[in-house]
Amino acid sequence: MKRWTMASLAGLLLGASAGAAADEGMWTLDHLPVQQLQQRYGFTPSPQWIDLVQHAALRLAEGCSGSFVSADGLVMTNHHCANTCLSQLSRGGQNYMADGYLARKQEDEPKCPDVELNQLDSITDVTARVNAATAGRSGAERIKAERAVSSQLEQSCVGGDARTWRCDVVTLYHGGRYALYKYRRYQDVRLVFAPEQSIAFFGGDPDNFNFPRYDLDVTFFRAYQDGKPARTPQFLKFNTQGPKAGDLTFVVGNPGSTQRETPWTQLAAMRDGSLIPTYGYLSDLRGVLWQYSRAGAQQAKEAQDLLFGIDNSLKVYKGWLQTLADEDFIRRKQKDDAALRDWIAADPARRAKYGDPWAELEQAQRRGKELRDRYTMIAGGRGFGVGTQLFADALTLVRGADQRAKPDAERLPTFREANLPAVEQSLEANVPVYPAFERTMMAWSMEKMRQILGADDPFVRETLGRQSPDQLAQQLVAGTRLADPAVRKRLWDGGAKAIAASDDPMIALARRIEPVATRIRKQYEDEVEAPTKKAGEAIAQARFARDGASSYPDATFTPRLSYGKVAGWKEKGEDVPPFTDFAGLYRRATGADPFKLPESWLAAKDALDPSTPMNFVTDNDIIGGNSGSPVIDREGRAVGLIFDGNIHSLGGNFVFDGSVNRAVAVDTAALVEAVRKVYKLPRLADELASGHL
Amino acid sequence: MKRWTMASLAGLLLGASAGAAADEGMWTLDHLPVQQLQQRYGFTPSPQWIDLVQHAALRLAEGCSGSFVSADGLVMTNHHCANTCLSQLSRGGQNYMADGYLARKQEDEPKCPDVELNQLDSITDVTARVNAATAGRSGAERIKAERAVSSQLEQSCVGGDARTWRCDVVTLYHGGRYALYKYRRYQDVRLVFAPEQSIAFFGGDPDNFNFPRYDLDVTFFRAYQDGKPARTPQFLKFNTQGPKAGDLTFVVGNPGSTQRETPWTQLAAMRDGSLIPTYGYLSDLRGVLWQYSRAGAQQAKEAQDLLFGIDNSLKVYKGWLQTLADEDFIRRKQKDDAALRDWIAADPARRAKYGDPWAELEQAQRRGKELRDRYTMIAGGRGFGVGTQLFADALTLVRGADQRAKPDAERLPTFREANLPAVEQSLEANVPVYPAFERTMMAWSMEKMRQILGADDPFVRETLGRQSPDQLAQQLVAGTRLADPAVRKRLWDGGAKAIAASDDPMIALARRIEPVATRIRKQYEDEVEAPTKKAGEAIAQARFARDGASSYPDATFTPRLSYGKVAGWKEKGEDVPPFTDFAGLYRRATGADPFKLPESWLAAKDALDPSTPMNFVTDNDIIGGNSGSPVIDREGRAVGLIFDGNIHSLGGNFVFDGSVNRAVAVDTAALVEAVRKVYKLPRLADELASGHL
Repeated sequence: MKRWTMASLAGLLLGASAGAAADEGMWTLDHLPVQQLQQRYGFTPSPQWIDLVQHAALRLAEGCSGSFVSADGLVMTNHHCANTCLSQLSRGGQNYMADGYLARKQEDEPKCPDVELNQLDSITDVTARVNAATAGRSGAERIKAERAVSSQLEQSCVGGDARTWRCDVVTLYHGGRYALYKYRRYQDVRLVFAPEQSIAFFGGDPDNFNFPRYDLDVTFFRAYQDGKPARTPQFLKFNTQGPKAGDLTFVVGNPGSTQRETPWTQLAAMRDGSLIPTYGYLSDLRGVLWQYSRAGAQQAKEAQDLLFGIDNSLKVYKGWLQTLADEDFIRRKQKDDAALRDWIAADPARRAKYGDPWAELEQAQRRGKELRDRYTMIAGGRGFGVGTQLFADALTLVRGADQRAKPDAERLPTFREANLPAVEQSLEANVPVYPAFERTMMAWSMEKMRQILGADDPFVRETLGRQSPDQLAQQLVAGTRLADPAVRKRLWDGGAKAIAASDDPMIALARRIEPVATRIRKQYEDEVEAPTKKAGEAIAQARFARDGASSYPDATFTPRLSYGKVAGWKEKGEDVPPFTDFAGLYRRATGADPFKLPESWLAAKDALDPSTPMNFVTDNDIIGGNSGSPVIDREGRAVGLIFDGNIHSLGGNFVFDGSVNRAVAVDTAALVEAVRKVYKLPRLADELASGHL
Repeated sequence: MKRWTMASLAGLLLGASAGAAADEGMWTLDHLPVQQLQQRYGFTPSPQWIDLVQHAALRLAEGCSGSFVSADGLVMTNHHCANTCLSQLSRGGQNYMADGYLARKQEDEPKCPDVELNQLDSITDVTARVNAATAGRSGAERIKAERAVSSQLEQSCVGGDARTWRCDVVTLYHGGRYALYKYRRYQDVRLVFAPEQSIAFFGGDPDNFNFPRYDLDVTFFRAYQDGKPARTPQFLKFNTQGPKAGDLTFVVGNPGSTQRETPWTQLAAMRDGSLIPTYGYLSDLRGVLWQYSRAGAQQAKEAQDLLFGIDNSLKVYKGWLQTLADEDFIRRKQKDDAALRDWIAADPARRAKYGDPWAELEQAQRRGKELRDRYTMIAGGRGFGVGTQLFADALTLVRGADQRAKPDAERLPTFREANLPAVEQSLEANVPVYPAFERTMMAWSMEKMRQILGADDPFVRETLGRQSPDQLAQQLVAGTRLADPAVRKRLWDGGAKAIAASDDPMIALARRIEPVATRIRKQYEDEVEAPTKKAGEAIAQARFARDGASSYPDATFTPRLSYGKVAGWKEKGEDVPPFTDFAGLYRRATGADPFKLPESWLAAKDALDPSTPMNFVTDNDIIGGNSGSPVIDREGRAVGLIFDGNIHSLGGNFVFDGSVNRAVAVDTAALVEAVRKVYKLPRLADELASGHL
């Protein structure tokens, strides 16, 4: 509910698995491809190995992955996964995102205001329970029934201790399976080490999704419990040599979402109705942020986190649009869909059982097209709050008060009891608010809303009144007191009564929006999402019936394991080698942003072994959300840190092409070398080497 | 060659006619639909009527239309067609685009630095000449032959007097016909009257392409000859009453381009390879300009012209993308293409004559996809000069010197002798240059180039060197002397020698770019444009052979006549009436931008008759480039001024739907009333009423 992150962006799209080839697959930890692994790599994971990687792997609730790399709670993730924490901790003239942060001793490890780690404890198949609850229902009834059974399952899983446990009912195979995921929750997460942005993201946007690459995209956090470093006996020991070409590699992490089983009709609707408009929308926002940043260092700091996210999303969108314009891909999808449809149609019993889910999908897509703009702008909050803190908090407060007044089973998932600790952590976080930035984002968002919905839309008329977006934004940001975390806490604790009594203009705006947003959201859920999901389930079940459930489900931002090997690829006939090294980094540096090395690296040049491997590529099957995942060897040791995919990996959202799709990682050898020789942090280097503080 | 206007934008896209229905059609003046007009409206235009509208109608070379509305050279066009002139004339604290300009007497009429008017003198069919020259040739040979014959035809048409005459060989029906258009050229064009932007574009972007509408989107210019108002006996007399609902209306103007006969394969390639990327590109630029403008009144003034154009283009693109995602439209196009392809395939003689142009098109599209980014960024100048004056001038000077050294027949069309007066007018225009704006646009353009071509593209590496785009832009803008028109003139007059000797950094940059750009352009022309054109010709000729040449050609920014009637339409089941009035304008005003009325209109409210018709809609078939066209009645009188289409008109680029596609015009009654009572200009009001100064 805070800033509009990549995760919430992905949420605006719709989301499906086929016979896996090459090193394809994002496998759930309870159904690993044991046979393939043995056949292809002569490796069978032991129960201990599986237990280790499961408990060492972490999910960052805001949209990334990580891992424990010491027995004392040390967490490895990406620099770009810590952007929000680094920005939020930067007060006054500090800019930890740009300049890095080094904790030389434990007392120097500051708490991130708003980071939550999840460690997978167990997976339980609850398909029968969910299916029993939703059988024979459709539309609003179905949504209500599914929410009720999910709430029951989650509550009983949490067992009254939501500060320790987090439980989510996860829809797999587009409704072919349901599983209850139970995680241990860590909310006291502190910052240990972050390098400068200029080395973490060396090459910047030009090199993003490209390779060769030279990035030290790492941050180390530490999980605390009861004010002390958490005891985490199951962690990945560092293999300080990194991997070799051809080595078997595993990635355990949380791929966000894929659409590999989604029917073409739905992909086409997504492209035209959502992807293209959002591409334009984000491009516009990027231009605003680019120019905003040029006004000075302070402005650059205010905009950096959001600008980074948007630049990244735009590259992803561009890659998606290319795949969705690929004629071979389209023909293959259409053929696959037609074959399954024919298979159903060929048999009366199947027709009776599955119906014609494609026709239902088409109908739902048409309705989605009619409703989408208002749904996105009003219910999705894009019309007011893109990139803003104050409006997002106001909406969370108003919506939270309203939702908490309902029985748990009827609430939106975000506001179920089991999830309230995450909401509260975010609301109460003492983070800086930049009025000029807030004003700019609100003015821009409202102007876009008026442009997209039209000046004559009744909601637009009522909300803007006789003011311009700029005037209204000015008045709201100047008038609100929500920048103060104590004010937010009072309003949250006061519930519906405090919200109703508030004269804060931002709260007043959110109060005006919320009933309209609720109506629109309900209509979209009932008329678009519910029938889409029902049709998706029928298609998934038909596919199971025809092919057997031998494959992996589409990604759902839950822990998955992928296997593969360290390997380059051929680009336009040329071999791309799988490793880069420090020597290449210094060659690529120009002195000008984004190819400008920080002082620390210029100073350390002579002390470093130029042949140290820096980044490498593997053919593991990953996607956005896997950022920060460890690369693991046969022995269960960390050999790398995933931070990106190559340009061909973007199409992986729709189809995995093992010949060119590559994951990009930082080599553990580079990490150890940098920590010791560039940043001169023997305490951290020793912890990485020994696995203990 | 100056700013990147909508015209040059349209030039990046590719460009085709079917049996015309309803009031469809953009007819050339030498082939009017006389039979349909008689049948549907009982009207047959007399030779005098045709001669009048042909000579009263004008083309504004930069991308608009206009008309003579008095015998003393008074020209009516849109306010938005005068944006560039209004911006260029605004020195110091003046902002004529925002605040308007009123010439109370003839001495107050300032010369627009860079406006050229073209008055159609004659049309000559030169199909046989061109076909004879290109017969049996393809690729580079074909382009060369076509350029040579065009140059010969144009030169002999101009007859050595390029200051008076302008001649263009125009490709009609995608190569089915060629015609030589001869125009009288007016380069001394002065500003008479422009209202405030806030009434010219009342409702701003939110109301753009919408209706009801309340805009006074007008500018009056005056053509001069020999320092005196030009004598223009063929002009449109004002019908000061405006039209009535159902009245027969004609629009004569210059529709820019349409793609109604373009095969689907080409449209799909355009959508995916050009439209979507450009949509994102322009959106990004819009964001930059939006934020740039918010820094203050001076910055808003610097950015306003470009921002207006981009906002407009983005709405057009959005409409196009919607049509190109419409399944019914796609199916119909595919069916049409398949039918013609089958018709050819059914007969060996036809196969021999036409070949398989669709296969050739597909091949050319594939090649286009590979070459497009470099073509657009480097040859098209997007990588450096979007929105800049200084870089555009540098490139014109360098390219012009190079091109003028060649024989006329081998030059790019822009630099043929017959066109040099327009280039020189533009280069020598004494217009303001805003360094901060230039820097911003250059930095942004180069950053986008690096993003799109990649940091490892050899051209990008060589051009940027070790500098960031911002550093390089700063250095170029600070170091160049091209802001001085005298410097530009010396370099132009000095030709290749002066260019080679120049140490101006902007010239040096253009010198480095030009050979690369030339190579890329030639490759794109030879491998993409030439085969596309050849295939388009074959398709057009096959269609002629099957259907007869009974229809109108796709738009080519040449004078066309469309006929229709004043009529509203049904929107979501509701009637939209065809007229708005002054009363509605005052009701819609809120006091906040873009619904804020200027002081002049607030002050005049009581003096105005609230029932005066302000804007109206007709079902004339128009498109971008028709802006500023007169609406003409049966008697050959002006009854309105086209300034927009409704939202359904955007799809008109691909298909005309007479049930909802509407042109939007200012009523002549409103124009006369405003000039007399709001702006209190009796001299101009009398001239409009009498047709004489």
